[in-house]
Amino acid sequence: MTTDNHQTNAMAKAVAGHFYAVGVGPGAPDLLTLRAVNLIQSADIIITPRSAQTEVSMARQIIEPYLQNQEIIEQAYPMERNLDKTLRAWGQVAEMIAERSQRGQSIVQTTLGDPLLYSTSCYLLDQLRPRFPEGWIHVVPGISAMQTVAALSGDSLALQEDRLMLMTAHDLNEVEKAFTCCETLVLYKCGKKLGELAALLERQGLANQTFLACYAEQEGKQFITQDLRAAADGKPGYLATAIIHVGRRGWKTTNLDKNPEPKL
Amino acid sequence: MTTDNHQTNAMAKAVAGHFYAVGVGPGAPDLLTLRAVNLIQSADIIITPRSAQTEVSMARQIIEPYLQNQEIIEQAYPMERNLDKTLRAWGQVAEMIAERSQRGQSIVQTTLGDPLLYSTSCYLLDQLRPRFPEGWIHVVPGISAMQTVAALSGDSLALQEDRLMLMTAHDLNEVEKAFTCCETLVLYKCGKKLGELAALLERQGLANQTFLACYAEQEGKQFITQDLRAAADGKPGYLATAIIHVGRRGWKTTNLDKNPEPKL
Repeated sequence: MTTDNHQTNAMAKAVAGHFYAVGVGPGAPDLLTLRAVNLIQSADIIITPRSAQTEVSMARQIIEPYLQNQEIIEQAYPMERNLDKTLRAWGQVAEMIAERSQRGQSIVQTTLGDPLLYSTSCYLLDQLRPRFPEGWIHVVPGISAMQTVAALSGDSLALQEDRLMLMTAHDLNEVEKAFTCCETLVLYKCGKKLGELAALLERQGLANQTFLACYAEQEGKQFITQDLRAAADGKPGYLATAIIHVGRRGWKTTNLDKNPEPKL
Repeated sequence: MTTDNHQTNAMAKAVAGHFYAVGVGPGAPDLLTLRAVNLIQSADIIITPRSAQTEVSMARQIIEPYLQNQEIIEQAYPMERNLDKTLRAWGQVAEMIAERSQRGQSIVQTTLGDPLLYSTSCYLLDQLRPRFPEGWIHVVPGISAMQTVAALSGDSLALQEDRLMLMTAHDLNEVEKAFTCCETLVLYKCGKKLGELAALLERQGLANQTFLACYAEQEGKQFITQDLRAAADGKPGYLATAIIHVGRRGWKTTNLDKNPEPKL
């Protein structure tokens, strides 16, 4: 077997000229990985994206305990559903990062949750790839909202032959279709749709199989409930996450089958 | 807004009598969260499940750097697709854990990846719930194989309105159906199906949009490739994970829409 020449694993300390997209998890500073902490502590530059409309960068607050003398760049950019504008904005950030890399600086970009799940890092990584030597760009996974909310609920996301689907609550017609092709459905960004979502879940008989969390693992702000109707009145943040247990699939065999099943 | 009385967040050190299902990530000791390390270091008892057929517990190897004087219980159990036998085996483990808890000991069970994704912890948690006071059972999320493999590939799992599906490769007819309802499909446990999966992906024109990894982040064993045909001959481990990029969805609006999109 040969191993293709892909990105290598991130290492203990940030390397001169390298770029790291680092997931910092949901909010609690102890839900960072050791690798994330090591890279944040050793990087020359930390980029924390923030919305042009807000004053604080959540991703910056999370890493505050790990900051020493790193240069911090709070990167504001437009948050609109406008692809051209989005790509242009991230192209400028990528240009700046490439220039810093050429000066021999190591750069970490932090994002909430995981860098490859509905994250600003996705845009940035696409723009960085043509500007960096192969093997100089690294991604460090972070604990996602899906995992965080599941951990608070205590219920399995998937077991045996279950199918797990993750999507946003943007289009509830699509959400309704998704019920037919998975056993567990995780919906991101439910905040603005809670009333309609509650109605849909009631119609589908799924209201009692749903768990909602907002600001999960963010100190003093965490809100969890199984009553979406009530939550809808309370204006939870737009990043609210719902886990809907549509059903269970179980093993699809009747005879004993010596395939080992769960990971250990 | 009221907060329902659900499991509280795990805390820095393991509390007497409490149980913690702790995800230890894919294999690299620096991909544990700080919370996982703190709990492992402070627990009285660490339970690491291992297959009855294998000699070593992978989850134990990962936490080796963090072990001090904790009592280690390597819990062998049958790995068969037999639900009665599985539940009985975990019922016995739950009985033992409840008894230790009543003696005031704190107990951590470690699992590879995340405890709520295709994990032995799912069985154990179900059996522990009736045996423990409310709020004494905690789940600590861990970096999953899906995130680990995506990080090695460098490609986004989901962005904008993309739907992400996670399932096992057990039934390739179901896998084929899944292509129609997601933009990214992640398949766990591909090892024994690689030849058939390669053929399916070729038929669907998806062979060039697939990334496969096995033993990701396990030192000296990691294997990544985009050539499933070749990999099928090399007998990768059964826990091999494939990420198939079926398509991209993009934003479903044409006009400017001031909904903020990615998390920061």
